[in-house]
Amino acid sequence: MTYQVIGHSVARRDGVEKVTGLAAYTSNLSLPRMLHGKILRSPLPHARIVAIDASRARRLPGVKAVLTRDTLLGDASLTYRYGHVLADQAIVAVDRVRFVGDAVAAVAAVDRDVAEEALSLIDVEYEELPAVFTAEESFGPAAPLIHETPPEVQARAAMKFDGPRPGTNICASLHIRHGDIDRGFAAADFIFEDTYSTPMQAHCPLEPHVTVADWHPSGRLTVWSSTQMPFQVRDHLARIFRLPKSQVCVLVDNVGGGYGAKTGIRLEPITSLLARLSGCPVKTMLNREEVFLTLTRHGNTFWVRTGVSRDGRLIARHIRILWDTGAYADAGPIVIFKAGYTASGPYNIPNVVIDSYCIYTNKPPAGPLRGMGVPQTTWAYEPHLDRIAAELGFDPIELRRQNIYRNGDTFVSGETLHSIDLAGCFDRALETDDWQPLGYGRRRTSPSKAASLEAANTAGSSVARGRGLACALKNTSTPSYSGATLKMNEDGTVVLLTGAVEIGQGCKTALAQITAEALSLPLERVRVATTNTDVVPFDWGTISGRTIFHVGKAIQEAAAQLREQLIALAADVLEAAPQDLELAQGRIVARGAPDKGITYEDALLRRLGIKGSGLIAHGEFRTHWYKADPGIEGCTSPFWDVGLGLAEVEVDRDTGKVRLLRYRCVADVGTAVNPALCRGQLSGATLMGLGQALFEEMLFDNGQPINPSLVNYKIPSSRDIPEVLEVNYIESGHQEGPYGAKGIGEIGVAPAAPAVASAIHDALGVWIVDLPITPEKILRALEAREATLRREAGAGAG
Amino acid sequence: MTYQVIGHSVARRDGVEKVTGLAAYTSNLSLPRMLHGKILRSPLPHARIVAIDASRARRLPGVKAVLTRDTLLGDASLTYRYGHVLADQAIVAVDRVRFVGDAVAAVAAVDRDVAEEALSLIDVEYEELPAVFTAEESFGPAAPLIHETPPEVQARAAMKFDGPRPGTNICASLHIRHGDIDRGFAAADFIFEDTYSTPMQAHCPLEPHVTVADWHPSGRLTVWSSTQMPFQVRDHLARIFRLPKSQVCVLVDNVGGGYGAKTGIRLEPITSLLARLSGCPVKTMLNREEVFLTLTRHGNTFWVRTGVSRDGRLIARHIRILWDTGAYADAGPIVIFKAGYTASGPYNIPNVVIDSYCIYTNKPPAGPLRGMGVPQTTWAYEPHLDRIAAELGFDPIELRRQNIYRNGDTFVSGETLHSIDLAGCFDRALETDDWQPLGYGRRRTSPSKAASLEAANTAGSSVARGRGLACALKNTSTPSYSGATLKMNEDGTVVLLTGAVEIGQGCKTALAQITAEALSLPLERVRVATTNTDVVPFDWGTISGRTIFHVGKAIQEAAAQLREQLIALAADVLEAAPQDLELAQGRIVARGAPDKGITYEDALLRRLGIKGSGLIAHGEFRTHWYKADPGIEGCTSPFWDVGLGLAEVEVDRDTGKVRLLRYRCVADVGTAVNPALCRGQLSGATLMGLGQALFEEMLFDNGQPINPSLVNYKIPSSRDIPEVLEVNYIESGHQEGPYGAKGIGEIGVAPAAPAVASAIHDALGVWIVDLPITPEKILRALEAREATLRREAGAGAG
Repeated sequence: MTYQVIGHSVARRDGVEKVTGLAAYTSNLSLPRMLHGKILRSPLPHARIVAIDASRARRLPGVKAVLTRDTLLGDASLTYRYGHVLADQAIVAVDRVRFVGDAVAAVAAVDRDVAEEALSLIDVEYEELPAVFTAEESFGPAAPLIHETPPEVQARAAMKFDGPRPGTNICASLHIRHGDIDRGFAAADFIFEDTYSTPMQAHCPLEPHVTVADWHPSGRLTVWSSTQMPFQVRDHLARIFRLPKSQVCVLVDNVGGGYGAKTGIRLEPITSLLARLSGCPVKTMLNREEVFLTLTRHGNTFWVRTGVSRDGRLIARHIRILWDTGAYADAGPIVIFKAGYTASGPYNIPNVVIDSYCIYTNKPPAGPLRGMGVPQTTWAYEPHLDRIAAELGFDPIELRRQNIYRNGDTFVSGETLHSIDLAGCFDRALETDDWQPLGYGRRRTSPSKAASLEAANTAGSSVARGRGLACALKNTSTPSYSGATLKMNEDGTVVLLTGAVEIGQGCKTALAQITAEALSLPLERVRVATTNTDVVPFDWGTISGRTIFHVGKAIQEAAAQLREQLIALAADVLEAAPQDLELAQGRIVARGAPDKGITYEDALLRRLGIKGSGLIAHGEFRTHWYKADPGIEGCTSPFWDVGLGLAEVEVDRDTGKVRLLRYRCVADVGTAVNPALCRGQLSGATLMGLGQALFEEMLFDNGQPINPSLVNYKIPSSRDIPEVLEVNYIESGHQEGPYGAKGIGEIGVAPAAPAVASAIHDALGVWIVDLPITPEKILRALEAREATLRREAGAGAG
Repeated sequence: MTYQVIGHSVARRDGVEKVTGLAAYTSNLSLPRMLHGKILRSPLPHARIVAIDASRARRLPGVKAVLTRDTLLGDASLTYRYGHVLADQAIVAVDRVRFVGDAVAAVAAVDRDVAEEALSLIDVEYEELPAVFTAEESFGPAAPLIHETPPEVQARAAMKFDGPRPGTNICASLHIRHGDIDRGFAAADFIFEDTYSTPMQAHCPLEPHVTVADWHPSGRLTVWSSTQMPFQVRDHLARIFRLPKSQVCVLVDNVGGGYGAKTGIRLEPITSLLARLSGCPVKTMLNREEVFLTLTRHGNTFWVRTGVSRDGRLIARHIRILWDTGAYADAGPIVIFKAGYTASGPYNIPNVVIDSYCIYTNKPPAGPLRGMGVPQTTWAYEPHLDRIAAELGFDPIELRRQNIYRNGDTFVSGETLHSIDLAGCFDRALETDDWQPLGYGRRRTSPSKAASLEAANTAGSSVARGRGLACALKNTSTPSYSGATLKMNEDGTVVLLTGAVEIGQGCKTALAQITAEALSLPLERVRVATTNTDVVPFDWGTISGRTIFHVGKAIQEAAAQLREQLIALAADVLEAAPQDLELAQGRIVARGAPDKGITYEDALLRRLGIKGSGLIAHGEFRTHWYKADPGIEGCTSPFWDVGLGLAEVEVDRDTGKVRLLRYRCVADVGTAVNPALCRGQLSGATLMGLGQALFEEMLFDNGQPINPSLVNYKIPSSRDIPEVLEVNYIESGHQEGPYGAKGIGEIGVAPAAPAVASAIHDALGVWIVDLPITPEKILRALEAREATLRREAGAGAG
């Protein structure tokens, strides 16, 4: 199928404004009379607040509002407890602080310096409480309780996962039972068991969290925010301030990077309350250290036990994942739910048990980070599969190909999969033969054999090369909703109203392409309006790679209505039956006789007879959770991301340093609406995954953050990217996606770390099980193997 | 019929923001890097521009752009000629200037002082041309031609009136032929002929004309403007700058008074071009003198000849109106067309000829002023009817009642009238008997008899009292279009998207009431979004009292769709057939069993199962011109304003000063959506009409404006209003209007001047035929009568 606009790498819509520095970001916004908000944060990981005295701060000239727990307790009009899933967070701490960085008080002042000074004048007396810093420890019976009473569930209808478990630090859990696990293991010829872990990591968006709030004298709240989910922000603010949603307006123009950090609700409640207290607009913008303490990626431990048949079929898998969700649930329950569902990987295993636990600790809250937990699960199931292949002497690629999901297979939820072409990704990835693993690290059953192979690989040099592959499967946010309104102007140009947010991914360009295609218009005749919750249709949020699919389908539905209206208008003029007419390049023409036609503008002119008038149509796309509601057909995900990564590395066995020689990623994008943007998404996600593989780790000492800065928390720079980065995709055409497209923003992340680990194993024959793969861990692994070899040699000698 | 929200005087939505000074007006808008624009204006009424040298202005520090005809002639990307109906105006004068105040050049500078100074440094050499200052003189064959070549017609399809007549100063004309005028006059028992006139008058909005324009680096133009017609502004800017309409965005929040002055296109082209030249946002705000020179109300002369039967039936009327439209057509052709159509008044006259001519002069352009020419025609046909009654000895009120249009009558266009209850207005106005004319001025056939009656009235004092009545009929803008989009939020609250502009009339309050009623919602759950041409549906403009009717009907259509969707959602839950359900106060309930129901919020929650999602629906209302298109049923106006005024005055025969003792207005509002707002509109319009009756007149000396300031151009102050002002309306229920409503913003103006004139005649027995009714004119009329009496007495003695 060829298209006029779809499939072309048209220039980004926001390109010019971004390179000229004129793009509007919340961080640049300034309003008349605007004050600046600052937040006083807890210095302790867990403590009772004995007393707060803000009187000195209030007296400081230039201070216009001071917000403490007294403000919350004294204002019956506020529902000050909130949270994305569980209402476990307060606008500022009321009884306790639960992590270093927890908000204790806030100030609005005429400038940031005065606000900072005011914070230093707030006296807080704490009584320290026992704290817990790992999910394992917190999961145990002896752990101190972080939330004494189970928080209220915010989602109105039943959640699809279990909620807080009273008397524990478990705030949510998912339990999947598919097939018969006992029979599966009983039938297995081999059983493998491993445990993997990832540390807490950070999103590091270029634009920090920032919100500007302003109250209108009529009691209406307007908020500009760097958010990926404007309608969720509106929802929360309406609850907190007990306003009808029509009295809350959230505006978002450009967002300087989200990656999940700007989901849910962040600075909006505290900033809105400061604005209400001061009677002025207030802007709160975090510094970099505060960004690190606002939302993180879940660290986790992933225990997995797999039963394999002699002929290489995975026949049983038992998984238990403990996720460190930090001090507040945020979207943690959703992360452990979504990632829990896909934790057995892209493999068709008939007998599966998955237990996924979201666990409070006294650390900063964790939430989604580009992949909703899937990169953390991929980090376990892919190295685990490599180890199975190595131990049993299978080719790791062929073992995967043998077991991956194919269209028509049954997912662990019970539903039938379609429009998944991971097999095609393998074909594409391996169509040139230069990517086969070097093989040194494979088929080794004993450390001594591995060591000898590795020595051969190193060949007298300190540097060894290896290649590895990993693949992944990801679902998208379900149930969810996107609307799209198309407004055709009198001259036939069109404005798209959507709640999708431009977070740098290029969605406004790609959605304009879908609009242009659906209406047979040149692209430059389509505009995408700025996101404003007052006027754009409801949208679940710009998360989980869902925008192109959900909004795209809504656009198609709206466009179909406009098409029908245009054809009806033209049918009269052209004296033709509507079914004999079609749209072509801004004109309504007779099928097969494109000369016979009129422009949209002329058709619209007919409606008034003097000047044109407009047309408006609305479309929507909704998904229902699979089996949530009897009689409603649903799914666990309307589309599935699949992709893989191939890494070639060079490891220095003296220093443990890893050099990324080549990286090839391949994903099934369904249809590439804009090839250049697809490649941008895939390469950006890959680099993010490589940073998480090799460098990224938030470090804590008894709950105190050690490295909350971009100097000490290392993300990939231009010197860390692979020397050759090959970005590929296949277009299998999603059977329900708009022009066959599906989400592609996240799938690049997950394969990166396991592919690198696989390549390192290929090079050196050692397994790394904890991220990140630092030189120290490689050296330690090599040393451990040496020790084993010495022991084996000793034993052999003895 | 009783309603929940309709018919209640709820508080204005914009009340709080207006009394607290926080309401957003374009005049308050300031953008970063914004420059200030100023316009150099012609000092001569008609001249050829020989040379312009702006080099000194360009060199002045702080000047960022200078715009002269050279800019226009040197930029092939501009269509610099524009105009609401005829493209007779240029962004700045190219070949000639045509009135004192015509734009010759413009400057954008860092502040207004620098801009002013720059204007003084632009050297213009003029060659003066013969000029013409009255429509009569300009209508004649000897008048100098103001536009040498007939301007291009802007409206795309055929206009419903005649266009420019080459070789003359006539830019448009309307010619109505109804019945057989010759037979009508032949059958008449009496024939009366009179000529009346009105002067050029001014709108005097509190907020001057002001526009801010900003270009985005992508080539997109954003304009904030104090305009009543944002979509017309967008239309013109798109033509001038040759942009698709999706690349032009016009934003309007509050407008500080319009009255027709802010129709069409004003400062937007010059400001947008200054912004493009300078690369910065530019604000142009006029001073008061410039406002007077930007748009005026047409002065006119109205010749009328009426044939009357012995029994008081009006059987033939011949009218010729010459309208002074100034130097550029603007909306003049529409004014002379709309007012031409109703020029025979609210009277069912079987034989009518109307010729209405729009004529260029070397004066400021004229356009609509609250009533689209109808106040000027009423000023003629009502005094003329009073004179017929007086001469023939009829009661002037009864003569009107006998001849007014009633439902089912045939209008001069040929269509059948409905939903007109002028008769009911008479009944209401006269239901208390204290309003009968005093009678002194009536039934006088000779000046001597009149003088003796007047002497009796005066009764030794210099002060005489009189009462008078006048009525009027007004049509509304046709064909036209309004859309309305209703966006229901997840919690069942609603946002209305409309292109209607809040010009102080309270439309956003009244439209919110219609929305709330149509959706059975409490009013506070409805919000009206700010007008932004990108996102709100097309709207013809906030003119001619059309908003409540057109937008109201569009809202009803959209609401019907939402109702249907809500009921479909609830039908499942309530296990009821949709036809057994209805909406009631935010809930979908079973008819007759309101306890069985669910809230909108709960119904919407069903759609996703976790949180709510929204609904969107679009409605529209379009009118077609009567007989414009074979097969399309149309009308000359979808509704008709009818109303009347009763004035009681005291006139001092020594000074000629008129004191307004009482004024009663009555209009048929169809249904009063908001009684307080209806009264506000009627009283405001009445006061405007009284100012035009007694004070207002733009004075010129050889084309030079004499009084362009609020010191010298007098509008009514609080000391000039009637001592008793009684505002009444009847609710006849328009059969197609939303909840029976129709437009009521303009009908209060027209009866004021003729009612006052009638009362003055009642008091003194003199006829005033030229507005305004100044003390000088009264004294001159009394003197003229004295002279006639003296002549009669001399003749009698002779």
